[in-house]
Amino acid sequence: MLKIGLLGCGRIGQVHARTIKGLEHAKIVAVADAVPAAAESLATALAAEVREPDAVLSATDIDAVIIGTPTSTHFEQIQAAAESSKAIFCEKPVDMSVDNIRILMDVTAKANVPFFTAFNRRFDPNFAALQARLRAGEIGAVELIQITSRDPSPPPIGYIKTSGGLFRDMMIHDFDMARFLMGEEFTMLSAVGSCLVDPEIGEAGDVDTAAVILTTASGRICQISNSRRASYGYDQRIEVHGALGMLRAENILETSVEVATAEGFRRAPTLNFFLERYEAAYAAEMKAFIDFVSSGTKPEPSIEDGLQAQILADAATQSQQTGQPVAL
Amino acid sequence: MLKIGLLGCGRIGQVHARTIKGLEHAKIVAVADAVPAAAESLATALAAEVREPDAVLSATDIDAVIIGTPTSTHFEQIQAAAESSKAIFCEKPVDMSVDNIRILMDVTAKANVPFFTAFNRRFDPNFAALQARLRAGEIGAVELIQITSRDPSPPPIGYIKTSGGLFRDMMIHDFDMARFLMGEEFTMLSAVGSCLVDPEIGEAGDVDTAAVILTTASGRICQISNSRRASYGYDQRIEVHGALGMLRAENILETSVEVATAEGFRRAPTLNFFLERYEAAYAAEMKAFIDFVSSGTKPEPSIEDGLQAQILADAATQSQQTGQPVAL
Amino acid sequence: MLKIGLLGCGRIGQVHARTIKGLEHAKIVAVADAVPAAAESLATALAAEVREPDAVLSATDIDAVIIGTPTSTHFEQIQAAAESSKAIFCEKPVDMSVDNIRILMDVTAKANVPFFTAFNRRFDPNFAALQARLRAGEIGAVELIQITSRDPSPPPIGYIKTSGGLFRDMMIHDFDMARFLMGEEFTMLSAVGSCLVDPEIGEAGDVDTAAVILTTASGRICQISNSRRASYGYDQRIEVHGALGMLRAENILETSVEVATAEGFRRAPTLNFFLERYEAAYAAEMKAFIDFVSSGTKPEPSIEDGLQAQILADAATQSQQTGQPVAL
Amino acid sequence: MLKIGLLGCGRIGQVHARTIKGLEHAKIVAVADAVPAAAESLATALAAEVREPDAVLSATDIDAVIIGTPTSTHFEQIQAAAESSKAIFCEKPVDMSVDNIRILMDVTAKANVPFFTAFNRRFDPNFAALQARLRAGEIGAVELIQITSRDPSPPPIGYIKTSGGLFRDMMIHDFDMARFLMGEEFTMLSAVGSCLVDPEIGEAGDVDTAAVILTTASGRICQISNSRRASYGYDQRIEVHGALGMLRAENILETSVEVATAEGFRRAPTLNFFLERYEAAYAAEMKAFIDFVSSGTKPEPSIEDGLQAQILADAATQSQQTGQPVAL
Repeated sequence: MLKIGLLGCGRIGQVHARTIKGLEHAKIVAVADAVPAAAESLATALAAEVREPDAVLSATDIDAVIIGTPTSTHFEQIQAAAESSKAIFCEKPVDMSVDNIRILMDVTAKANVPFFTAFNRRFDPNFAALQARLRAGEIGAVELIQITSRDPSPPPIGYIKTSGGLFRDMMIHDFDMARFLMGEEFTMLSAVGSCLVDPEIGEAGDVDTAAVILTTASGRICQISNSRRASYGYDQRIEVHGALGMLRAENILETSVEVATAEGFRRAPTLNFFLERYEAAYAAEMKAFIDFVSSGTKPEPSIEDGLQAQILADAATQSQQTGQPVAL
Repeated sequence: MLKIGLLGCGRIGQVHARTIKGLEHAKIVAVADAVPAAAESLATALAAEVREPDAVLSATDIDAVIIGTPTSTHFEQIQAAAESSKAIFCEKPVDMSVDNIRILMDVTAKANVPFFTAFNRRFDPNFAALQARLRAGEIGAVELIQITSRDPSPPPIGYIKTSGGLFRDMMIHDFDMARFLMGEEFTMLSAVGSCLVDPEIGEAGDVDTAAVILTTASGRICQISNSRRASYGYDQRIEVHGALGMLRAENILETSVEVATAEGFRRAPTLNFFLERYEAAYAAEMKAFIDFVSSGTKPEPSIEDGLQAQILADAATQSQQTGQPVAL
Repeated sequence: MLKIGLLGCGRIGQVHARTIKGLEHAKIVAVADAVPAAAESLATALAAEVREPDAVLSATDIDAVIIGTPTSTHFEQIQAAAESSKAIFCEKPVDMSVDNIRILMDVTAKANVPFFTAFNRRFDPNFAALQARLRAGEIGAVELIQITSRDPSPPPIGYIKTSGGLFRDMMIHDFDMARFLMGEEFTMLSAVGSCLVDPEIGEAGDVDTAAVILTTASGRICQISNSRRASYGYDQRIEVHGALGMLRAENILETSVEVATAEGFRRAPTLNFFLERYEAAYAAEMKAFIDFVSSGTKPEPSIEDGLQAQILADAATQSQQTGQPVAL
Repeated sequence: MLKIGLLGCGRIGQVHARTIKGLEHAKIVAVADAVPAAAESLATALAAEVREPDAVLSATDIDAVIIGTPTSTHFEQIQAAAESSKAIFCEKPVDMSVDNIRILMDVTAKANVPFFTAFNRRFDPNFAALQARLRAGEIGAVELIQITSRDPSPPPIGYIKTSGGLFRDMMIHDFDMARFLMGEEFTMLSAVGSCLVDPEIGEAGDVDTAAVILTTASGRICQISNSRRASYGYDQRIEVHGALGMLRAENILETSVEVATAEGFRRAPTLNFFLERYEAAYAAEMKAFIDFVSSGTKPEPSIEDGLQAQILADAATQSQQTGQPVAL
């Protein structure tokens, strides 16, 4: 039985708590949150204790911590968790600063604690199946990857202002997916971005529509595009073209119902909410984390994966702002 | 060069003329129509002569005739064509009377003239590909066939009154398709029909919505349904379930364009007009006819195929009216 | 808090237990099973008691019972549950005998206990959405319904022999769906059936491939087809054609991944296992039952729905055996 | 009756000849080709004369010329055609040199002759429908365009060597499509390219896999990707994301047949041959040209469109070679 402490009882913390509640070999023994009522409510539902974050991090009855708190707190919490030899499950981004992530890599390596960067999309059953078939050679060597991600609508402007910008907040998922699929590091990146959705986003110094080209040393190419809006729901698509064919993962629609009228054949919009779209992915990543820790296998995505994605996000931000390609 | 006489210069006669104009080894030398202007106009476009029907049927400079005139004239024209040893391409139905078709089978057999019953759908590239793959064993032995045919809207009530009824006028195509796909004759048939689209059709003694079950001696099953209306266009689908899998041919849409909005993903309606939907089929059947005649191969669909489809249409009409299954 | 007793701790009982475990306003207090180990195991997982079936049925600390035992035990259990005023959730079929179901209708009516017949497919989110849109008038009046159900492979021959036959065991789901969608009772039925999949099924007096046509007094038509095998998974489709258009629910595929190679574009097979395919439906039907009981609303599907489906299954069996249509 | 002279009787010249043969208000009166037999053969089929190219260009009995000869001959032929006041239909690219195209713009403007640059894809019924709906505002203002073009396999290496490179030979179609859809000129372009398909292409100084990002002054973004191979056929897709939704045109498959087996649901590959895929587009562009000339409307795509596409192709070539973005 893996004993887990949960830091952060917000939306995503609750998702993880629900997954763990359904598992046999893990349980949450303590939760912490800056909002006492949030911690209380979740603790009751889990039959777990409410503790202070520091107490969770230093507890001797806890094997692993889930860090689902705001990004700004990650740096100290990860260090504390490493010091007390906890396995660490950390929401993305690990930290806004690449330098900080490098420090944390050292700290966790020296402490020899397992570290899992929660890029949930790798665990989406559809994307995971695509990647497995890619690795199995079903379409031969990768040549071109196209990743399309569109949110149904922009987050609140307050969130945008502290988000680190579209590339670090939203496209970072796609950067990790690109690395996951490509299987070779990128060496060059060009980014463009615009404010087409909401002028307030532009006034906040951010973009809401963006496209990036990445290339590897061997000449493989990846295209990513992001938009902060999509009238038809949460648009999450992947396409990989290889020497022997193409693999793609289509959107997940609300239902399988189609209506035919004089206007044609109409299927449902895509699932609109990320927690619903990636429900299976969130459950699968938590199970994977617990399996990694239980079996003593190094977790994947690792803290290095968190670092590399952040490096790409930084480079894209720079490229978009300077108009120049960035060598990685 | 196969020299052809065309009887009937209406919509379908013009389709055949256009096909033949594009071919190298056949030409229309004479045309005939009850409406002189129709014959004149088509003759000019083809650089062909206008003749009386009888003159076309008895001509010595003509090898083959296309009979695209009203069904009531087929019986005499086929006999005349057989007497003067013409290869015969005849629009469906060969005749409304099964007895008459039997007589024509004898006449054409004795005259040893090739006879092609123009069940155009067998030549639709999609249905033809499906049937070829079925015969090649791609899904093993046939178990269940489902044929769905819906017209965009009912024909004029005047047409309905002389049509012989839905089973003989519309479902006859599906009966032929069922035989084409099944590869085993049917031994039992049950039909139901209703008037749901237009009360005038019911007053004329016909139905506008119908379903039929057919079975073979070995227990294979075929379901057919027809409707005289479909808001989304001309609906023409086939599905065959076999021991090893399923083959199906989907509808052909107006364009490949899809729009995604808050209402979902919408593709175009189906092609709405039968001449457009089956454009390739009409061209292919004419080429097949010319190839059969040129090569001396017995045409398919044959007059026997015309007979069998008519027998099924009669049986369905009887079953719908009596409420009892009909043994074939 | 609705206190529930669970009779039957097999596959389906476990599904219901899992659903209830995740709910706030209901809990399973006791379980029973003919196999003590099955009852023990589930009781432990639920922190519930193991009791004898009779003790569950007569318990004073239980508000509702879930009857997930073999069909042959339903008759007595339902009577006992009614006598002790329990709300009843009963797996289909209620009983193999229409006469017995009529008796149970009386008994439960007199006892004034809520009775829910667990036709889970009504609660599949896709089929439920289709039905809701149909009722909302999206395609106008219903004209033609087509229901296609194919199992991946036949059940064990031992199961077949006690199943009551394909129409009562498998197509009964489609009969209920047909009634659910049509919104008008059927008045006439014709059935055909064959043994094409496995000769042992035929030797057991059953069929493995079948098709039925049903009609209503107003002339609406429903076609159903069943097969005991489908190489590509569990095939569950519905199509409704109405005056203004068509609504259909397509299959649910294992993943959204598509591969394109020289052989074309290939998507995944359908979900293969009924518990997986209808996972959401099983959860939704249990929530609905608990809501009905909690709110005092009459459950739907009711025992009358269970009766009507059984009447259709009996009629289909008779029609298939006699070769004659059956008036309902 | 528009009298047309055809220069170039190769594959594409024959396509245009076939279209014109079926039209009522235009005819080809003379053809020319460097290979006499090619000219003779086509002339016979058309009942047209064979003439020398110069004689066609200066003829007084000819209203319009179709220039389907190698690109290197366009410059002189267009000048000659302009001098003798012929309407000009010119295959893409107008010329490999942007300077030359500017000269030809002057020449044809001064001569006041209609000039049509044959970007056939604008006339594909699917892409044309998409663009019309875009212009009609169906998805609001354009934000992101994604164009995917993949050839089934690379052309012969000899062709590659004289082609001007992938951006000028293949992606030029996509550049024109991007302008056609965007409705605003591009101001910045970044291109990457690799040799992944065939090392010989790299040795010839060209790339076979490429991606480009284009942006406009108002911040709209276009992504294009090209590959010289696709196992599943000729891949031609467009997707436009706008403020109110997304419009996309999918591939055209060989047939509508789908097979379902244990491996899943498999549809046909895409149409493999560009002449077949764009058959309708070639016919429609010729009809459009004849309509423009007959009605005195300025043709579209114009020579300016030919120039702009060439400018983008040059910029992409430069960007790919220098690794730097190019301002337009």
